[in-house]
Amino acid sequence: MLHRQSVISGVGETAYSKHSGNSVLALHLECALTAIRDAGLDPKDIDGIIPYIGTGVVAEDFVTNFGIPDLRFSATTPLGGASPVAALQCAAAALATGICRHVLIPIARNGASGGRIASRMREAPQFRTVAEFELPVGAFAPAQLYAPMARRHMELYGTTSLQFAEIAVNTRRHAILNGNAMMTKPLTVEEHQASRMIADPLRLFDCSLESDGGAAVVVSRADCARDLRQPPIAILAVAEGHPDSPSAISQRADLTRLGIAKAAPRAFAMAGISHADIDVAEIYDCFTYIVLCQLEDLGFCAKGEGGPFIASGATRLEGKLPINTHGGLLSQAHMVGMNHIVELVKQLRGTAGRAQVKDARVGLVTGYGDMGDGSLAILARD
Amino acid sequence: MLHRQSVISGVGETAYSKHSGNSVLALHLECALTAIRDAGLDPKDIDGIIPYIGTGVVAEDFVTNFGIPDLRFSATTPLGGASPVAALQCAAAALATGICRHVLIPIARNGASGGRIASRMREAPQFRTVAEFELPVGAFAPAQLYAPMARRHMELYGTTSLQFAEIAVNTRRHAILNGNAMMTKPLTVEEHQASRMIADPLRLFDCSLESDGGAAVVVSRADCARDLRQPPIAILAVAEGHPDSPSAISQRADLTRLGIAKAAPRAFAMAGISHADIDVAEIYDCFTYIVLCQLEDLGFCAKGEGGPFIASGATRLEGKLPINTHGGLLSQAHMVGMNHIVELVKQLRGTAGRAQVKDARVGLVTGYGDMGDGSLAILARD
Repeated sequence: MLHRQSVISGVGETAYSKHSGNSVLALHLECALTAIRDAGLDPKDIDGIIPYIGTGVVAEDFVTNFGIPDLRFSATTPLGGASPVAALQCAAAALATGICRHVLIPIARNGASGGRIASRMREAPQFRTVAEFELPVGAFAPAQLYAPMARRHMELYGTTSLQFAEIAVNTRRHAILNGNAMMTKPLTVEEHQASRMIADPLRLFDCSLESDGGAAVVVSRADCARDLRQPPIAILAVAEGHPDSPSAISQRADLTRLGIAKAAPRAFAMAGISHADIDVAEIYDCFTYIVLCQLEDLGFCAKGEGGPFIASGATRLEGKLPINTHGGLLSQAHMVGMNHIVELVKQLRGTAGRAQVKDARVGLVTGYGDMGDGSLAILARD
Repeated sequence: MLHRQSVISGVGETAYSKHSGNSVLALHLECALTAIRDAGLDPKDIDGIIPYIGTGVVAEDFVTNFGIPDLRFSATTPLGGASPVAALQCAAAALATGICRHVLIPIARNGASGGRIASRMREAPQFRTVAEFELPVGAFAPAQLYAPMARRHMELYGTTSLQFAEIAVNTRRHAILNGNAMMTKPLTVEEHQASRMIADPLRLFDCSLESDGGAAVVVSRADCARDLRQPPIAILAVAEGHPDSPSAISQRADLTRLGIAKAAPRAFAMAGISHADIDVAEIYDCFTYIVLCQLEDLGFCAKGEGGPFIASGATRLEGKLPINTHGGLLSQAHMVGMNHIVELVKQLRGTAGRAQVKDARVGLVTGYGDMGDGSLAILARD
């Protein structure tokens, strides 16, 4: 069992920008060092590393640059945006079975100034599953692939672009409260509605940013974290889920159900809590619609009721389920969701600044990957 | 702990050749299906997948083609040739912590007819660690990078090319006994010595093959394997190790010590056995020298005594430590060592045919990765 076997002991971020001026390796080392020091550890204490696949940086880069003497576990979790939270599961398994004591999970990218996301999508192995039905009609950028999912939801359940706007506006509000967000100006519903169409029904402000920067967490075995610098944030549960076969988006029997729908019941059962116990949630937000769909698949509302749930203001800072309190991928930075984990840890430590949710004790973070893969973790401060 | 928590329940291989005539995906599905059926499982029982990185095939390919309904764990272990055995560790952790029940670990490649190894090395992320010191002098193919390691060992310990020849000749002998090996003609020491120099001191017959084909294993939680088709082969221990910093080969303080030297004591302690208990060993053999060096680093002989140890005939089928009973990467096929795991399982089941080691009960298998990474597993039939 993974329940309470490990904790997040350290978190770190670089500044987020459109042009870092640093190499991807330097950004990796910066955010990793920040997280390791935040935990009160020395880089040589790291004995497990799970880098994000596809940045060109591998575990050996940390061995070489930090002089890590005895790396005992290295892996990657190639689930696209579901990778960082899936990496928590992989780390928790390695820690619980005694393979290692402190696992570093870093990501860094020059996603704005360097290789931009859409331009590299054709090369991603995950995209072989869209090769037959989507690529031949010119659909390969994420917005193109997810637009039909959003449209299907609108057709089935009457979901509206105004409900997507509420997500964008709310997330921007939180970004402004954060001291390290790329977007710093308020966004109105009218501006969202007037923004240009990227892939119908997804408008510009339904889409996440492309960003330079890095974010990292250190996960430690619970019994190795008692004397560290920060209050340990326990992993109550973590799970991943994959969509029904076939993975090709346009061929799925149900376009509006993501892999996280399978993982969520497992995670809540492992955590031994109910939805009402979640004080704050950081929900992967590559597109506004994906947030709405996940809230349903997670069970915070029934399928088809995500639009009204969001329109009610429930996900605002003062609502019953504050989400994306850092500004998310939509308005803070696109760190593939590692920034969501960092923010949840800050919330549970009580150090989230102006966006702090009062008395946040239990929180949830999700990841969403290219092919509909999903991951979630439930964390708590004791 | 990973000790005895999981077993290898199924193994599968395709034919090995220079031209498969099949796609890499088709080869993956073929060897995976063979392994799954060997275990007595249905593809839908698979709930964990650890594909080899860099073949272009990802976990979703199996979800789509096999209709896997509930994949709960997916990862890769990017350690080059140490990946398959490192994947056993990763799988064992996922199984022991209850994440999943049956993990598929497949590899397939058209390494001879498709993308050949050396031509693709420059693109491999692991090779960033040779970018500063080796690439500028034109060294990027594996034989070029490992030649100085072999030469250093010869200088320090008087190791000879004739001792390398014994490894090549012995391995070829075993390949001929195997029904599925690319090399089918006997090799003599004289032929080895007369073969052309590839990267001094490594001659043609010191180098492994480039091969088309696929190999796969299924690892199952011990308590889920009792009623399966095959006698379960228990994982007594598994570990990975990385070389000292810096990873750049030519800059290491000790060129003759591999990462596996750190992993071996951990694995033997976890298994609770001594070297004398090992009945058969499948040792990663990308080059003859790497076999010799690993035998030392594993502790089967002292550092510097690998040459005499091998020259004594100890590693022959009738010796005290028969190795590479299938013909290895040198003479069976280069399946990145997955074929070594398959062969060890066959040996422990007693189904290794003409190369069967009598009464083999406990065996060892290793992996060796591009940057000196190492992995080993100790398996046993109860």
